[in-house]
Amino acid sequence: VRLLAPIDDPEKVIRVGLNYRDRGLEQDVKVPKEPLIFSKFPSAIAGPFDDIVHPAESSEVDWEVELAAIIGKMGRHIQASVAMEHIVGFTVANDVSARDWQMRRNGRQWLLGKTFDTFCPIGPAIVTKDSVTDVHNLRIRCSVNGQLMQSSSTNQLIFRLPQLIAWVSQFVTLRPGDVLLTGTPPGVGVFRKPPVFLKQGDEVQCEIEELGTICNKVV
Amino acid sequence: VRLLAPIDDPEKVIRVGLNYRDRGLEQDVKVPKEPLIFSKFPSAIAGPFDDIVHPAESSEVDWEVELAAIIGKMGRHIQASVAMEHIVGFTVANDVSARDWQMRRNGRQWLLGKTFDTFCPIGPAIVTKDSVTDVHNLRIRCSVNGQLMQSSSTNQLIFRLPQLIAWVSQFVTLRPGDVLLTGTPPGVGVFRKPPVFLKQGDEVQCEIEELGTICNKVV
Repeated sequence: VRLLAPIDDPEKVIRVGLNYRDRGLEQDVKVPKEPLIFSKFPSAIAGPFDDIVHPAESSEVDWEVELAAIIGKMGRHIQASVAMEHIVGFTVANDVSARDWQMRRNGRQWLLGKTFDTFCPIGPAIVTKDSVTDVHNLRIRCSVNGQLMQSSSTNQLIFRLPQLIAWVSQFVTLRPGDVLLTGTPPGVGVFRKPPVFLKQGDEVQCEIEELGTICNKVV
Repeated sequence: VRLLAPIDDPEKVIRVGLNYRDRGLEQDVKVPKEPLIFSKFPSAIAGPFDDIVHPAESSEVDWEVELAAIIGKMGRHIQASVAMEHIVGFTVANDVSARDWQMRRNGRQWLLGKTFDTFCPIGPAIVTKDSVTDVHNLRIRCSVNGQLMQSSSTNQLIFRLPQLIAWVSQFVTLRPGDVLLTGTPPGVGVFRKPPVFLKQGDEVQCEIEELGTICNKVV
């Protein structure tokens, strides 16, 4: 049995940058005043146990465990007070990132470095909203080859889901199936001293309390 | 009769920046060595004669006439020599842009400024590839309220379609229906002296020889 991605053809994969309070500790950056929004193409989505294909074009492939919210109800200009009604459930995502392409190439527009095929494993399932105790207080972790690399809690989110949905829906109509990745805690490879990047054969495990675990081998 | 967009639910709307040779004259920039790729969400697509909704969140809404290629055949790592086989046809697009959000907000990631709902009118039809004499030698123009603002030729493209498709498919699988906007010639509002931006009631007409004309009112 091969588990597929619980959703593989959303209209949008929306990504929030620099959204963990504790991440300011590793990058010398201020807490942002507004959410920073970028995107991945839906073609980047992979199943929860699928391989991550390391592209020949990058030598700086990195991991990012993230809480993903799945939109269940269409809306534009959604008020934060009712925004949670627009979410149907949650899943675990790995926002795989080619740092060379994200940070130094492509005029510093992040898209290409974030959107290689297979750079968005998600799953193992969409856990419905009512099954989660408190989505803003879940342990979130990532390990590579069994070594713990990221360990935080979604209580460290700077912009929480109601604010993020209100923010993004100022710009675009949110539609059922849209995937909103909420940002990653500290511990990614590029900010380690020395930096660590993924290589063929590595296994990346991303885990969020109550939502489950995804595990992807780099090939 | 209201003509709809000839394609309204592509997986990807891919956009190339700074891709007209003559545009270097208005912006003090060098000819780029590689295509600069960013994106709009498919939710931005509007019909060829639909209104462009001016968002309250921006005071710098601008026009960009562009040649758009529509992908007809799936592929990854496509060689430039066979890339034209992956295109089914062409259409006219207006890559409407909120310059404040593109250039100064959102950490200078261009996505938000480019992707407000209705910011991607396309049409009036997909003209099949075999009906076009030479896609790299078509007159391309944009006028606002009847005043000519952009006037160039697709022979000014720095990266032509075979190179663009080869480049983008290094990163992602191209799928039928994907829309590739190839960049805009000089004459956009933000680089005029003084700058000119769109306001309610303006009519923007974008025209490409052999492909037709789209006309959108700002409301």
